[in-house]
Amino acid sequence: MTAGSFIHPTAIVADDVTLHDGVHIGAYSVIHPGVVLASNCFIGSHCELGVPVGGGRLPATGDNGRLVIGPDSTIRSGGILYTNSVFGSRLECGHRVTIRENTTAGENLRIGTLSDIQGDCSFGDFARLHGNVQVGKGSVLGSYVWVFPFVVLTNDPHPPSHHCIGVTLEDFAVLGAHSVVLPGVKLGRESVVGAGSVVKSDVEPGVLAAGSPARKLCMASIVRDKVNPAKRAYPWQAVFDRGLPWQGVGYAAWRRENPDAGLPTNQEERR
Amino acid sequence: MTAGSFIHPTAIVADDVTLHDGVHIGAYSVIHPGVVLASNCFIGSHCELGVPVGGGRLPATGDNGRLVIGPDSTIRSGGILYTNSVFGSRLECGHRVTIRENTTAGENLRIGTLSDIQGDCSFGDFARLHGNVQVGKGSVLGSYVWVFPFVVLTNDPHPPSHHCIGVTLEDFAVLGAHSVVLPGVKLGRESVVGAGSVVKSDVEPGVLAAGSPARKLCMASIVRDKVNPAKRAYPWQAVFDRGLPWQGVGYAAWRRENPDAGLPTNQEERR
Amino acid sequence: MTAGSFIHPTAIVADDVTLHDGVHIGAYSVIHPGVVLASNCFIGSHCELGVPVGGGRLPATGDNGRLVIGPDSTIRSGGILYTNSVFGSRLECGHRVTIRENTTAGENLRIGTLSDIQGDCSFGDFARLHGNVQVGKGSVLGSYVWVFPFVVLTNDPHPPSHHCIGVTLEDFAVLGAHSVVLPGVKLGRESVVGAGSVVKSDVEPGVLAAGSPARKLCMASIVRDKVNPAKRAYPWQAVFDRGLPWQGVGYAAWRRENPDAGLPTNQEERR
Repeated sequence: MTAGSFIHPTAIVADDVTLHDGVHIGAYSVIHPGVVLASNCFIGSHCELGVPVGGGRLPATGDNGRLVIGPDSTIRSGGILYTNSVFGSRLECGHRVTIRENTTAGENLRIGTLSDIQGDCSFGDFARLHGNVQVGKGSVLGSYVWVFPFVVLTNDPHPPSHHCIGVTLEDFAVLGAHSVVLPGVKLGRESVVGAGSVVKSDVEPGVLAAGSPARKLCMASIVRDKVNPAKRAYPWQAVFDRGLPWQGVGYAAWRRENPDAGLPTNQEERR
Repeated sequence: MTAGSFIHPTAIVADDVTLHDGVHIGAYSVIHPGVVLASNCFIGSHCELGVPVGGGRLPATGDNGRLVIGPDSTIRSGGILYTNSVFGSRLECGHRVTIRENTTAGENLRIGTLSDIQGDCSFGDFARLHGNVQVGKGSVLGSYVWVFPFVVLTNDPHPPSHHCIGVTLEDFAVLGAHSVVLPGVKLGRESVVGAGSVVKSDVEPGVLAAGSPARKLCMASIVRDKVNPAKRAYPWQAVFDRGLPWQGVGYAAWRRENPDAGLPTNQEERR
Repeated sequence: MTAGSFIHPTAIVADDVTLHDGVHIGAYSVIHPGVVLASNCFIGSHCELGVPVGGGRLPATGDNGRLVIGPDSTIRSGGILYTNSVFGSRLECGHRVTIRENTTAGENLRIGTLSDIQGDCSFGDFARLHGNVQVGKGSVLGSYVWVFPFVVLTNDPHPPSHHCIGVTLEDFAVLGAHSVVLPGVKLGRESVVGAGSVVKSDVEPGVLAAGSPARKLCMASIVRDKVNPAKRAYPWQAVFDRGLPWQGVGYAAWRRENPDAGLPTNQEERR
């Protein structure tokens, strides 16, 4: 046992697991071979980490790949994470999250209760998914994107077929609750999609779109704050900062100090 | 062990837990400190009750607040209920329900499989939520309301923002499957929203609304029963009684005996 | 223990359970009385099989009915299956699937992560449900049907009422993501419903319908493949074969050898 760690006596931890200092593993959790938990990770009860590809028996070869969880992460109870994925620091999962194999994420990814990442996906830094989101295979989500409840990112243009064409969310894009995005669609930087939309074609950067099919309504930057109409609601990063790197500093000041954070060059690297 | 109780030997029950007579706790369930289970509560397997606020480690102070579950309640397997909530008698949860902190409910709340109550919510008596419903923080649901599958009650008028403006469902309101209700919207007493709607503005009492955005179609009371067109379908309490206090008696007769049940005065108290 | 089986020492298996050769039961799973697992079934961790009707205590009579799972089936971790259901060979469930009582299925049913079958349902052979699908009580799904994520099959024509009128999907029908189908609707053989639709009336065989309410757009057979426009996308069985009986053979050749597979006569028998 590493320094300051707590492993509940009912947790089942395979031999080939790497635990750094200050790790907590809750009751009745199962940690399969190949899992690496960096320092101060909290794993709740009833979790299953390092699920083998296919979701069934461990491979007869003994090589289960690797699932790497960055430091200071929290995986709340009931989480199921497959092997062959890498998460940066401060991953935060709600309850009963599912994340399949070949997923990569930068820092501070947050995924809400019951959300389901279907694998072969990538996330930038500070991506935020609320609960009950389904991210189809092959999706590419940038940094500082927001996806609200019951959104589905699809990937098959005429299902069922052998095609898999993921959705792309550029940095700072916002996708409203109960929307579905059709395969291959790109939501541009700082674009906003209203709740209950069916998004069939690309949304240009900074545009607010809504409806079924979603159409451009206006530039998001002209939307006024409902509570304080003297303020603008978008771009959201100018008015919202909770849990974000510009908290208490303001986005403009932070951006001057961090001119490259979440810019398209990073996004290209992530692909 | 209290009289007539059953606690599975694998269940983990903290010292600071209060169990009344006839309680059943299933295999592999975890009961954190501060939980109070009234008489004859059934807790299925793989549940986690009294989850600390934040969903992570128990508080270092040792004070985990209180989760109070009323008598004769059933929490089916996989339920996750946070601390700091109070439920009246006969709470009934499907499987894998999530209920966050600061939730209060009257008697006989029913919540279907996989539904997710995000906290800071209140429910009257006999509220019914089907499966896969997400109730956003700050929602206020009256008595005898019905929420059907895949409904989302949102709370942020231009996400992400610092605003949280919950939805209100007045007594006897009905919200059809796969609908989304935008922040601050009020569904009036005995109103009905059709399936697949996006509700952007208030629905007046007794009105049937549907579509995206939802618009008034007619008064609900003129809708005829599909199977027996000589009967009216709404107000629903005149034709449906399963599990409700007027079962076998009829709503009109029950109302004469209980003139104050589920009336606006009660609703005000709940706020 | 039967030949080649593995039962994790933490699994709880009732006496009145029948296990055939090569069965695997994962950690912290609970197998209630009356469950029959045919040869080579894989049951992941944290599952609960044979849940009694009602989802609560086991019946005092000691007779919990029977849940029969066909050979070579896979139930991934977190699955909850009630008693009184029968599944043919090669049932395949994603994680945290829920299947209530009185469900019958032919061979090779696949149900994605978090999907919820509400009981009194029937499935033909090779039916495919993606994740987060809710199938209401009384639904009848034929063979080779596809249901994509966040679809709801409803059953109450003016909820809440005492009516339960299920949806019917004929063989080879396809139902796009985030759609809702109203009670009693029939989707005809080889019909296709676009994503985000609200289906209020029957869809004729071979028709592509979409929208809210869903309307006929064209015959599905005129839709061209997005990637290779020289090919047609529907009927899908001519272009897609993964995991299907005509894999590597081609649908036309397979159909000549199996003229009765998934035809209406079978469907009548299933009712």
